[in-house]
Amino acid sequence: MKIDNSPPRGTRDLLPDRVAARDHALAEISEVYRRHGYRRIETPALEDIRRLRGGEGGENEKLVFQVLRRGLDEVVAAGTPVGDLVDLGLRFDLTVPLVRFYADNQATLPTPFRSFQFAPVWRAERPQKGRYRQFHQCDIDLIGEGSVLAEVELIEATTEALAALDITGTTVRLSDRRFLSALARHTGLAEAEWPGFFIGLDKLDKIGWDGVRAELTGKRNLPAAAVDTARSIIEGLVGLDPAKVADRIADAVPTVPDEVVADLATTVAGLVDLGTTRAVRWEFDPTLVRGMGYYTGQIFEISHPGSSSSVAGGGRYDKLVGRAAGKDVPACGFSLGFERIIDLIPEVPARSALAVLVEPDVPVPHALRRAREARADGREVVVIRRSGKLPAQLGRLEAQGFTGFVHLRAVTAGGAGEPERPLRSAE
Amino acid sequence: MKIDNSPPRGTRDLLPDRVAARDHALAEISEVYRRHGYRRIETPALEDIRRLRGGEGGENEKLVFQVLRRGLDEVVAAGTPVGDLVDLGLRFDLTVPLVRFYADNQATLPTPFRSFQFAPVWRAERPQKGRYRQFHQCDIDLIGEGSVLAEVELIEATTEALAALDITGTTVRLSDRRFLSALARHTGLAEAEWPGFFIGLDKLDKIGWDGVRAELTGKRNLPAAAVDTARSIIEGLVGLDPAKVADRIADAVPTVPDEVVADLATTVAGLVDLGTTRAVRWEFDPTLVRGMGYYTGQIFEISHPGSSSSVAGGGRYDKLVGRAAGKDVPACGFSLGFERIIDLIPEVPARSALAVLVEPDVPVPHALRRAREARADGREVVVIRRSGKLPAQLGRLEAQGFTGFVHLRAVTAGGAGEPERPLRSAE
Repeated sequence: MKIDNSPPRGTRDLLPDRVAARDHALAEISEVYRRHGYRRIETPALEDIRRLRGGEGGENEKLVFQVLRRGLDEVVAAGTPVGDLVDLGLRFDLTVPLVRFYADNQATLPTPFRSFQFAPVWRAERPQKGRYRQFHQCDIDLIGEGSVLAEVELIEATTEALAALDITGTTVRLSDRRFLSALARHTGLAEAEWPGFFIGLDKLDKIGWDGVRAELTGKRNLPAAAVDTARSIIEGLVGLDPAKVADRIADAVPTVPDEVVADLATTVAGLVDLGTTRAVRWEFDPTLVRGMGYYTGQIFEISHPGSSSSVAGGGRYDKLVGRAAGKDVPACGFSLGFERIIDLIPEVPARSALAVLVEPDVPVPHALRRAREARADGREVVVIRRSGKLPAQLGRLEAQGFTGFVHLRAVTAGGAGEPERPLRSAE
Repeated sequence: MKIDNSPPRGTRDLLPDRVAARDHALAEISEVYRRHGYRRIETPALEDIRRLRGGEGGENEKLVFQVLRRGLDEVVAAGTPVGDLVDLGLRFDLTVPLVRFYADNQATLPTPFRSFQFAPVWRAERPQKGRYRQFHQCDIDLIGEGSVLAEVELIEATTEALAALDITGTTVRLSDRRFLSALARHTGLAEAEWPGFFIGLDKLDKIGWDGVRAELTGKRNLPAAAVDTARSIIEGLVGLDPAKVADRIADAVPTVPDEVVADLATTVAGLVDLGTTRAVRWEFDPTLVRGMGYYTGQIFEISHPGSSSSVAGGGRYDKLVGRAAGKDVPACGFSLGFERIIDLIPEVPARSALAVLVEPDVPVPHALRRAREARADGREVVVIRRSGKLPAQLGRLEAQGFTGFVHLRAVTAGGAGEPERPLRSAE
């Protein structure tokens, strides 16, 4: 009988080398976020199914792994809606739980509150290459800071985390939902048409202006004149000199509120100042939309030439916390695409372990004592039984990352003098 | 409208101080296990429901959070068994997934394989104080080592991990399932009566000999003579001199196989040898049973005066891997009771953070620059807006673990000279 031992469809096991690489990356990221005052929290993997269906999760709400109620009858009564059988679900992101967490604990949390989360999320997506049904998200959020101080700090911390991982060549793309709304209004689109306009615009990097125009005027039935006006304004705002971004936006869309222009000017000034410390490439990108409906202000992504999708994304969501907390609390977050980042970084530094090779006649206490002695200086020391031909076993050990070995035989086991020998001829 | 923002029943949120304490403990444990060659792996939280119902999980199999199949009709057809609606479940331990992982990846894993796991598990237990429906397990397992070298090494690594956490006063309790079986046979019990005998015996520390005798002879209908024989033998084996454990067991239960006696002698010799390096209190405990049915050899627990249940437990399970891998592979594991351990260790070292207090008229880039400068030496530096009365705000910051602050005003913001001031008068 052949037993299928593979993990569930769309999930995967992580072997030691891969876990080590991930742990190494997480340690670097955590250290950067710690220095910026972000402190890690944890929420349970399960949330009330009604919360996961609350309308803030967009398309992800359709992808929830639903958990059966406990104590049900063994046979379902006729006519039972599936929804009645379910009370919990696995979280599909870390933002919905964060908002619940903040609302529940706000009395004991400092203001502002800087949250760091690194945890798995689950989505019942159709499995495909590079997409998993369980994957990790890595989010920082600043709750309670209403000014763009939050935006600039989040961009600084996130780009610093990427730099700590030696991920270079990235570009921060910046826009503002309020600018997009003013643009849509300026072109004459009715407010009900804006969401469709944004969704179409979001595809620009994939299908180009001809594709966007076809979708907006065809499938979405928007007036061609409005689309052409938008295109012309957007094309005039690409590749701007940093010093001129705010003014040019105000010129191009006169109905953009002053506050939005001032906020953009401040963020730009902050990024310019950061640029005096280390290289940060950024651009104002009027075509940036971001998928989630809850953004209310500046939005940002970080793109990398080695990754077709962005390696980080985020923005301001000032109305989301209020839905749980009862009163609005400004908030802004930035999420690193951890799984994509792992694909971009080089392999983790090799381990440096010593193998204590034990012949069968060596007493167990002696073998363990020899390992203990070698381990005293903090090294990784592993007791392994001698088996097969010695050169073949040494070759396997070297492939596993061992750099040295001690060959322990009964006659020598009592003595302290078995020498350590290097496994790599170069050493 | 009052919104309930608490986490699902029986689960909890972890706030930053608590996460920091847990991370600190995990780092200490991980470092000890790393030095012993244990490497971390990860498996998905979800497993096939049939695997979670495979019979190796004991009572835990009844506590699985079951996950609904995707793509079901909105209304369940009449007469549908609940089981037909489910295909996945959340793991209730880390052993069942480890066995699947090993069987699936054995071709690429070294022999022996030393696994370290730290991950959440889920059990739909009736919520009660100190018991959660999501909690973390922390397991090391040595797969592919058939001798008690595994047992002694696992005990050494686990006690060293506890020592690294400054958890002292622990006692390792050691027994062997094969001894228990021989004892049961020796008293004249039929093999079918052994499981009930073990379950009753396992309660000795809670209900005493009178209670055990009442349960075994009453509820379980075992012959009183057999129970009294067992009691007499067990009482004769408590508190033995280490050097005499193996001999006394062989004397007390002559049918104990020689191999079992030799293994116990070796483990005892290993523990005695370890005791020459650091203090390890241990005892042979003939009443130790361990709940799971899959143990096949030596079993062990670590007890601590500050915890009513054990802080670690494990043993040999030589037949479990074979059920998935198709051929038997010897295995032995030791699991730290991470949640209990966290309750035993002192609070994590205080953070040492600098607050950059920013008056409203300070430009954002200046505030962030000042923080960046102070952060250059690796410190945690947090930008916080000035609000309310200064002494009150400083008091709040001190309570949050800040040790110093910089008061940034617009007039000084351009200069580099705002002094850092300590928050604690003692410093």
